[in-house]
Formats: sequence, C-alpha cells, structure tokens
Amino acid sequence: MARALELIGDWWTPLILRDLFLGVNRFDGLAEDLGVSRNLLTRRLKALEENHVILRRAYQDRPKRYEYALTEAGRDLVPILLALTAWGDRWAQPDEGAPILFRHKSCGRFFEPRLVCPACGEPVRAEDIDALPGPGGAPTPGTKLVARLLAGRRTAKEGD
Amino acid sequence: MARALELIGDWWTPLILRDLFLGVNRFDGLAEDLGVSRNLLTRRLKALEENHVILRRAYQDRPKRYEYALTEAGRDLVPILLALTAWGDRWAQPDEGAPILFRHKSCGRFFEPRLVCPACGEPVRAEDIDALPGPGGAPTPGTKLVARLLAGRRTAKEGD
Repeated sequence: MARALELIGDWWTPLILRDLFLGVNRFDGLAEDLGVSRNLLTRRLKALEENHVILRRAYQDRPKRYEYALTEAGRDLVPILLALTAWGDRWAQPDEGAPILFRHKSCGRFFEPRLVCPACGEPVRAEDIDALPGPGGAPTPGTKLVARLLAGRRTAKEGD
Repeated sequence: MARALELIGDWWTPLILRDLFLGVNRFDGLAEDLGVSRNLLTRRLKALEENHVILRRAYQDRPKRYEYALTEAGRDLVPILLALTAWGDRWAQPDEGAPILFRHKSCGRFFEPRLVCPACGEPVRAEDIDALPGPGGAPTPGTKLVARLLAGRRTAKEGD
C-alpha cells in the first residue's frame, strides 16, 4: 500500500487520472479543469510518467505538441478510483446526488463497482478478511508493530 | 471522488486506516508503527474522527484512556484499500513479493479483491466504463471541462 500511495498518494493525482480517463488529455485542459497551478501540475505529471502510470505522446509534429494518456498500470487504477468515488458518494453525498454516474458498457447498467473474492465470487467486506505476512517481509513504512502482529497471527495459525 | 479524497486524501491517512484494521488501535502504537510525528498523527486522527471514518472510545476508566476504531464508513473503505494494495503489488512489487497477504475467511483462499459490476457480475476494466453526468451537477474541483465533456456525451446519447 505504501508503494501504491507513493505513486498516487496526493490529493491531485487521482483527479489527474480521472481527467485523463474522462478524456481531458492535454496540459492546458488539465490545468483549466482542476484549477491547479501549472507548476504543481507539471510536477505531478512528471512523477506519474516516471512511475509509468501515465505516458506522454506527441499528437502534432510541427510544432511538436504532447498529450498525456494512462498506461496499462494507470488504466488498472481506474476501477479502484471508481470504487473510491462510490464510497465518497455513499458516505458523504450531497443532497442533489452523485455528480458522475458510471455505466457498464457490456450490460448497459449504471453501477458502482463491487469488490469480490475472485476465488469464490462473494463480496468482500472488512470482516471477511484475514491479513497474514507475505513473502515480502514487513510492510513499509508501517514496520515494527504490524510485522510483529502479523508474525503472531502466523504463529497462532500454525499452532492450531 | 473529490469528497472521498478530502476524507482520505493524504499519504498517512490510508496507512492509519490500515493499521486500525490490522489491530493497531492506540495512539502510541500508531505513532510507533508509522514513524509519524505525534502532532501530525493527532491532526489526522482528529480529521478522520470529524469525518466519521473513525471513532474514539474509552478502553479504560481510571485514568481515562482512549483507543481508535473504524466506523462503518471506515470499514467500508477497507476493501478499497486492499484493492489499492493489490494494485501496488501488481505494478511495483519488490522482488521478494507482497509484504501482506489477505485471506478471504469464508472460502479460505488468499486473494486480491476484484472489481465487478453488481448488475452482471463481470469484472470491470477501464475500457468497460462509460461516464455520464449524474444528478449532482458538475464534479468538484474538476468543473468546467469535465462538466462540458459529460454534457456532450449525454447529448450525443440522447441524439442517437
């Protein structure tokens, strides 16, 4: 999670990704839409490009002009951003309703993405989840306590 | 999404939520685990409490001592944080593998949450999603361009 947040972990970044997904692909459009300073936007776009979440491509040759697009990793984030949007609408929705609706093209229905377990297909709620230590060692930056806590759980399971 | 990000939109907040979910519930434990300043942690906890994502409850009476726990809205965020973690592991995983594994209690399998459309049950990818304007008007803070763009899409659909 820490790694995921390093990539998308500030307020503006998910909004940039949303705009790219919705079709606002050029620097001026992003700056206008988000009302963000050009300096900040330049830094965020650069960081996203370095992390391979977006890419920059020429859309015109003379003079050379560039636009931004989501990479495969960036597109893979879109459903998660939708789930986050749906969460915001569920718990903090203004009286007038959600500002954007999403439709699933293949079935034609408006929807909020639901999180399921791919093994059994059932919805996943917090109370359905056990966390156990993985092969990659302690999570960062949460380290000491979480690592100890997870190690304790593994031992408890093994001792069952 | 802007509203969701107002609530959880900084680097530390999701890590605090993760720790609360994993069972690190007391101030000292959170400060130690995250290696974050007590001032910053106090501010983040207060903001999360004011936004009803976490609650503070007494675990001891004399002297009064408090711990933090996820509210229903906070627990509703957990699967989304897991999806974000899985994304980070998919695209930026270190060689040694994921630091935390998640097991679905009801089926016993280790899993990454998958996002599906509740109407048809099929997985949702970015290319499967249409965005259309909702009843709540223009999204914030992305406003002008996105609103115009969505309005254009509605018109196009109605004109079909």
